[in-house]
Amino acid sequence: MRAVVRRNKQLVCDEIGELEPAEGQVLVRTLACGICGSDLHALHHMEHMIDLARRAGGADNGFDPSADTVFGHEFCAEILDHGPGSSKALKAGTRVVSVPATLTAGGVELLGFSNRLPGGFAERMLLSEALVLEVPNGLPTDQAALTEPFAVGFHAVAKARMDADSVALVVGCGPVGLAVIAALKAEGHGPVIAADFSPRRRAAAERLGADIVIDPARESPHDRWEGLGVPKARAAQQMMRMMGRSFGRPVVFECVGAPGVLQGLIEAAPAGAQIIVAGVCMETDRIEPSIAITKEIELTFVFGYTPEEFAGTLRNISEGVIDVSGLVTAKVGLDGVADAFVALADPEAQVKILVEPGL
Amino acid sequence: MRAVVRRNKQLVCDEIGELEPAEGQVLVRTLACGICGSDLHALHHMEHMIDLARRAGGADNGFDPSADTVFGHEFCAEILDHGPGSSKALKAGTRVVSVPATLTAGGVELLGFSNRLPGGFAERMLLSEALVLEVPNGLPTDQAALTEPFAVGFHAVAKARMDADSVALVVGCGPVGLAVIAALKAEGHGPVIAADFSPRRRAAAERLGADIVIDPARESPHDRWEGLGVPKARAAQQMMRMMGRSFGRPVVFECVGAPGVLQGLIEAAPAGAQIIVAGVCMETDRIEPSIAITKEIELTFVFGYTPEEFAGTLRNISEGVIDVSGLVTAKVGLDGVADAFVALADPEAQVKILVEPGL
Repeated sequence: MRAVVRRNKQLVCDEIGELEPAEGQVLVRTLACGICGSDLHALHHMEHMIDLARRAGGADNGFDPSADTVFGHEFCAEILDHGPGSSKALKAGTRVVSVPATLTAGGVELLGFSNRLPGGFAERMLLSEALVLEVPNGLPTDQAALTEPFAVGFHAVAKARMDADSVALVVGCGPVGLAVIAALKAEGHGPVIAADFSPRRRAAAERLGADIVIDPARESPHDRWEGLGVPKARAAQQMMRMMGRSFGRPVVFECVGAPGVLQGLIEAAPAGAQIIVAGVCMETDRIEPSIAITKEIELTFVFGYTPEEFAGTLRNISEGVIDVSGLVTAKVGLDGVADAFVALADPEAQVKILVEPGL
Repeated sequence: MRAVVRRNKQLVCDEIGELEPAEGQVLVRTLACGICGSDLHALHHMEHMIDLARRAGGADNGFDPSADTVFGHEFCAEILDHGPGSSKALKAGTRVVSVPATLTAGGVELLGFSNRLPGGFAERMLLSEALVLEVPNGLPTDQAALTEPFAVGFHAVAKARMDADSVALVVGCGPVGLAVIAALKAEGHGPVIAADFSPRRRAAAERLGADIVIDPARESPHDRWEGLGVPKARAAQQMMRMMGRSFGRPVVFECVGAPGVLQGLIEAAPAGAQIIVAGVCMETDRIEPSIAITKEIELTFVFGYTPEEFAGTLRNISEGVIDVSGLVTAKVGLDGVADAFVALADPEAQVKILVEPGL
């Protein structure tokens, strides 16, 4: 079958071996699979990523970043066949999504970061029958494929300790930031301030329900806290508390993941802010702890999601609580993937590109 | 009256002006005042400290770090006289402690970091009648003077989200670490692991109730997590949860405050750990966010305490819930302060030195 293979830090279309579903597995046809920012980074820096993940105690089942890999972990697929001993609860032809992990006799393979099993940039995949979720009737495949990136936002919001009066600031409106905005609004939080330099991403933030959308080239989003009732300085906060006046806990979602962003937020956010770090900065970064201490900042680093959060996200999308229509800005076949990786470097050109191996 | 004055980055004994209590103030005789690590740092680096505090939005009422300052914010004192309009609820001769802040017509003066009012390294001070707390009968002055540093530990523990099975690791057993250990045990938390290179500080940690005391030169304290039921890797934690087995949330108290310590903890602590950053690192520090993300680490930067936490600490000490006896390793008069600052650079030589202006 055909697949896009990462080989020598390049993406090449090639034939790879056919797949045979083992016990507990289903063979699926990939209908659509999103390109993630981590794929862009992994194309050139996978060795570094894996080194960091191993130092963090992550399990990758012996993945060799120098060997062939088929990326793709944001997918919607259609069941083709079942492995031995299957319950066949979901029949062939059923559209499904899944957390990108497949249980094998040799351990858990992380789809998209495995040498043994292909991810979604291949015509077919092997999924675990126990992990697949049926796409509810009528939800378009394009939207179902966005379950995975939106689950990341769901998880980030679940880690925020918001109260009824909380004000949220989402810094960076790429796919992670947009997923955070959607999850905040789905949970009824607000006001939500969103900031991004790109007009296209700001428009997407607005469509997903951000209450205040800011171009940081023209205005600092941090100028808005006080107008929304959140004093920035600790002394002013203490004064309000002494006067018996309450104010919402400030929560900032860092969805950029570049060096320096964290320190900028430590300096600019209100005292007492919880900063949810969802943007993945792969480089060493510099912070000034004494400023974070004086302001009693909390840095909550978040990663991934639980299976329950993934399922909740699919439900939110399928029931219209989160409207993800319009976020897919391009679709490509397997032979368009390499060019799509280049196009995604420009935030103005694209939000989310889907790969459709059938195109 | 006599005081130790910081002048040209040196400590000199000098005569300073007499004090007159204004409305709402009490004039007190300083009985004892501890030397804090922040005093040691401020002697040489006050300009930098104040610059950082201002960037953090801290209020210091126009403090000029290049002008004369009398340090000392961990004190026990005796009321001498009351300002006009005083309730005189506490009579002259009453021993008191106070959060180190005095309300004046011109704003709040932070005692120990003020050009207008002296801190505790002076024979007398002006305190706010509304903020002083009577030292309960019989509590020795030495121990009452430890209320302030132990309130720092009380606050740090209040910011930790411990559960019934939580395991706590206290890294660094200087005054801040010891205060954290005492507060953890006062709240009934445990087991508490304590780590410090100094035998003297390890002995103090043990006396304050640490359950496991470790010399990090011989053994990593992080080797103990698994034996106490806390898996370190995220995959192992997920496996335990899947099997329905609970484990305590790992909480680490960073009480060192030197560059590199934070990143060391991010790498070595269990996945999901909350790291309470109580040690004040005044330099720019380097972290690797991607490792913190993969492990879902939480960095909670803490500072100071509330008036309620200060009062609760005095109560804990006076009722014997926290036994602070034996922590004062030396006492000096005003003319011994400069040498005491030098002696405190060696963690083996001293734990806490009290200044007694009457000596």
